[in-house]
Amino acid sequence: MSYIATFDLIGCGVFAISGAIIAFQQRVDGIGVVVLATVTAIGGGTVRDLLLDVPVFWLHQPNYIYTIIFASIVTILWINSSRKIPGKSLEVADALGLALFVVMGTEKALSAGVPAVTAVIMGTLTGCFGGLLRDVFANQIPLIFRKELYAVCCISGGLVYVTLLNFLSVHISAIIAFLCVLLLRLAALRWGWSIHVFKFPDHSSH
Amino acid sequence: MSYIATFDLIGCGVFAISGAIIAFQQRVDGIGVVVLATVTAIGGGTVRDLLLDVPVFWLHQPNYIYTIIFASIVTILWINSSRKIPGKSLEVADALGLALFVVMGTEKALSAGVPAVTAVIMGTLTGCFGGLLRDVFANQIPLIFRKELYAVCCISGGLVYVTLLNFLSVHISAIIAFLCVLLLRLAALRWGWSIHVFKFPDHSSH
Amino acid sequence: MSYIATFDLIGCGVFAISGAIIAFQQRVDGIGVVVLATVTAIGGGTVRDLLLDVPVFWLHQPNYIYTIIFASIVTILWINSSRKIPGKSLEVADALGLALFVVMGTEKALSAGVPAVTAVIMGTLTGCFGGLLRDVFANQIPLIFRKELYAVCCISGGLVYVTLLNFLSVHISAIIAFLCVLLLRLAALRWGWSIHVFKFPDHSSH
Repeated sequence: MSYIATFDLIGCGVFAISGAIIAFQQRVDGIGVVVLATVTAIGGGTVRDLLLDVPVFWLHQPNYIYTIIFASIVTILWINSSRKIPGKSLEVADALGLALFVVMGTEKALSAGVPAVTAVIMGTLTGCFGGLLRDVFANQIPLIFRKELYAVCCISGGLVYVTLLNFLSVHISAIIAFLCVLLLRLAALRWGWSIHVFKFPDHSSH
Repeated sequence: MSYIATFDLIGCGVFAISGAIIAFQQRVDGIGVVVLATVTAIGGGTVRDLLLDVPVFWLHQPNYIYTIIFASIVTILWINSSRKIPGKSLEVADALGLALFVVMGTEKALSAGVPAVTAVIMGTLTGCFGGLLRDVFANQIPLIFRKELYAVCCISGGLVYVTLLNFLSVHISAIIAFLCVLLLRLAALRWGWSIHVFKFPDHSSH
Repeated sequence: MSYIATFDLIGCGVFAISGAIIAFQQRVDGIGVVVLATVTAIGGGTVRDLLLDVPVFWLHQPNYIYTIIFASIVTILWINSSRKIPGKSLEVADALGLALFVVMGTEKALSAGVPAVTAVIMGTLTGCFGGLLRDVFANQIPLIFRKELYAVCCISGGLVYVTLLNFLSVHISAIIAFLCVLLLRLAALRWGWSIHVFKFPDHSSH
């Protein structure tokens, strides 16, 4: 239990950093930075827990809040002193957080007794919905509607996890699904993979 | 019970199609199409169930998810092959879905034991909130703030339903309220009805 | 109990007025005015109750809905007849509503048994989240990301309240925390206080 909680806090911290950096890029200031960091870090898991009707995970565990505040402050100090926004290193950290959140969200949903397909959706929500809410609150078109395979990585990881559970132990299934999300996301970033479903008649008009 | 579930699935499918079409019109691509279709189809009922503190309706019924995925794929294939977006026929289907959702949302709220005025709000949420969330996620001004009488149709249908229940059976009340929403909506579309509450001093400045 | 319910209704009415005025300023019309007024008035408390997993406060108490509808109609009539938007008087009323909501939200969270730091967040949500949702629904950058110390006033009031409870009675703690939010907010408005955490390299480029 203890090392899962540790991973969860790490995931929150990484997502909070990514939220604070996007706040800076969108020139949000003041308390808005912490608000966006918080929404990015715990928004997905919060919506998952509300839908599953289980206690919201951070409600009785202030450690999540402390982690987010700490991560936000460190990010603010660092941006103000170095003026450089981390590119690649943040993306790798974000992919790690994503992979953690997807596997843990899917597992939590299965523990709550929902069907496998619903569990995959819950894992995807855990990974994506915080970032979606962050973009909605900052009045931006959500990144997941544009970003390379972000949601597809989550869905794939969830499907891999619920499938492997039929054959393998929870731990091994979790590790393989985690690696699946991580590698797929890093590959999508590296080679700029994306999915197009529409053949828009005129790409230049918008 | 069975035919209500069927109606509910039809309503979800219709709303998913409308969500996917709006995704195309707003040039959302990839997985975003399915996300917007899903939010349109189940967003209103999900918020209703969260507020009523009853189990979220699609959590243990993957049929809703399958219906939405199927409707999204058909819509994508159809748009890509025909390049024509359905106008009138979609509006009629959307009005049918709206009428279904309002009556069923109001009835579900009454079954959960809330007062009549709250049940009318829940019926309206069921009909409107999915589309509102879709527009918010796509970073658009919500259609219900502009569209002809969309919310007014929902409120009227809910009021008719809770009023008629005092005199008539559930089935007859539901059918009359359903027709009320449907006809009011189609009339508002046909004759471009809308409501203005403010006398803006200068309509041209915005 | 009775006078708390009265304060709560007053807070809702004031926030509904502020929501309807902002709807006018953003040229939202028709039913959208009532939607934005409602979201402003009960959005924060609704999210708080969902997170705490307690019954949503307005679900069985239609008085909140009646108050919001009444406040919206009065605001609409008044704007249409006078064409003047109240400036200072609205800000003072809004600050009063904010102070009420923060103290009552923090207290409700403590009663639900969450840790003090979570209770402060819940008090802040009660005060700020309705306005945040209003801005998100109206497709605007949320005011709390720009407005002078809005969220900081809430956080301060919540921290004062949970701290004083260790030494003083509930009533006296509530009154002091209430005055703390109110005076801090009025001072921030009067002297234009704001917080900057980032040193943006080039303020003119955006």
